[in-house]
Amino acid sequence: MKPIAVILSGSGVFDGSEIHEAVLTLLSLSRAGVAYQCFAPDRDQRHVVNHLTGEVVEGERRNILVEAARIARGEIKPLAELNTDEFAAVILPGGFGAAKNLCDFAVAGADCQIEPDLLEACRAFVAAGKPAGFLCIAPIMLPLIYGEGVKGTIGMDAGTAQAFNQLGGAHQECPVEGIVVDTEHNVVSTPAYMLAGNIVEAAEGIDKLVREVVSMCQK
Amino acid sequence: MKPIAVILSGSGVFDGSEIHEAVLTLLSLSRAGVAYQCFAPDRDQRHVVNHLTGEVVEGERRNILVEAARIARGEIKPLAELNTDEFAAVILPGGFGAAKNLCDFAVAGADCQIEPDLLEACRAFVAAGKPAGFLCIAPIMLPLIYGEGVKGTIGMDAGTAQAFNQLGGAHQECPVEGIVVDTEHNVVSTPAYMLAGNIVEAAEGIDKLVREVVSMCQK
Repeated sequence: MKPIAVILSGSGVFDGSEIHEAVLTLLSLSRAGVAYQCFAPDRDQRHVVNHLTGEVVEGERRNILVEAARIARGEIKPLAELNTDEFAAVILPGGFGAAKNLCDFAVAGADCQIEPDLLEACRAFVAAGKPAGFLCIAPIMLPLIYGEGVKGTIGMDAGTAQAFNQLGGAHQECPVEGIVVDTEHNVVSTPAYMLAGNIVEAAEGIDKLVREVVSMCQK
Repeated sequence: MKPIAVILSGSGVFDGSEIHEAVLTLLSLSRAGVAYQCFAPDRDQRHVVNHLTGEVVEGERRNILVEAARIARGEIKPLAELNTDEFAAVILPGGFGAAKNLCDFAVAGADCQIEPDLLEACRAFVAAGKPAGFLCIAPIMLPLIYGEGVKGTIGMDAGTAQAFNQLGGAHQECPVEGIVVDTEHNVVSTPAYMLAGNIVEAAEGIDKLVREVVSMCQK
């Protein structure tokens, strides 16, 4: 089968892709015998956060693609070069980068908007009838991509679930080791670090999501 | 058993800890039911490397501890606070950070010296008779810590193996999925991304190393 595209949003839970989630996604894809290619937007992050203190570093700028290249060991391409024809599916790990750099949910809540480059990339997979997987907080973008009634999970957090529903989605509660499959829209989500208390818990749901997405590609 | 200390050297293969190796170490520890605590030196990295281009970014400074906190999701302590009594063993993932920030092998080759804070931390584990694990290029420091005759591997790279021997070690060739155990010195090494062609290959040797270190702690 064709490789799967993985869209990253930086490198670090507080301002980019959650690193464990991203690496576990690549591990599960590789274990499933599926090639992958990482992509990220070639533009500045919304914030740079000092991950030791949790504070925003005023005045510092970092590029999403350049930082995401750390997770991908340099093997990454600009999101603008993603050609849907070449890929069987797309997966988006979580981390605040998904809610700050791919959309603005972290600052705008239920009024959030999705970045045009990300929306175009994801809609191309939808239009081609290709499956997708969203981890952690990334599923908050599902209603903006798939429209009214799309099913997804961000775990058990009532406030975020409410925002998901306000945006037009149909939120499903889901334990950390589980996945939610919207068979109509061909999209899978898992709570990952929205709920995970440790890396093993995150790994279980992520592996399940990756295997489901791969299985959808083979149908 | 007591937790295991994991010493990081930044976040990114070209100027810090190799991210996959670090995350896979944490995953294997967690899967083995062993708690961990990450540490890193609280000082500046030798370089900041743009991981998209591979080039050193002139004039930019990043702190090893602050960057390593990205891998540890903020749960990390300065290396100076590592109290050997509280830990059963220590593990050092690889990446150029091990050869740039923990010692200067990347620039000095066989004339390399180990950073005093790292040497003190590792020697305290040796003095306490506690096991240690070194991944990828990190084993280049074994002769500087354990002295003449210590056995270890950096994979199959002839030049690096020669430097390991010049430093006083007894280099052992080892395939990517293997480990080298020096039972006299209680230390384990694995090639990881010195040889790995993909993340699954790296994961296999790293998991074997972690299980061996944990097993040594239980003896």
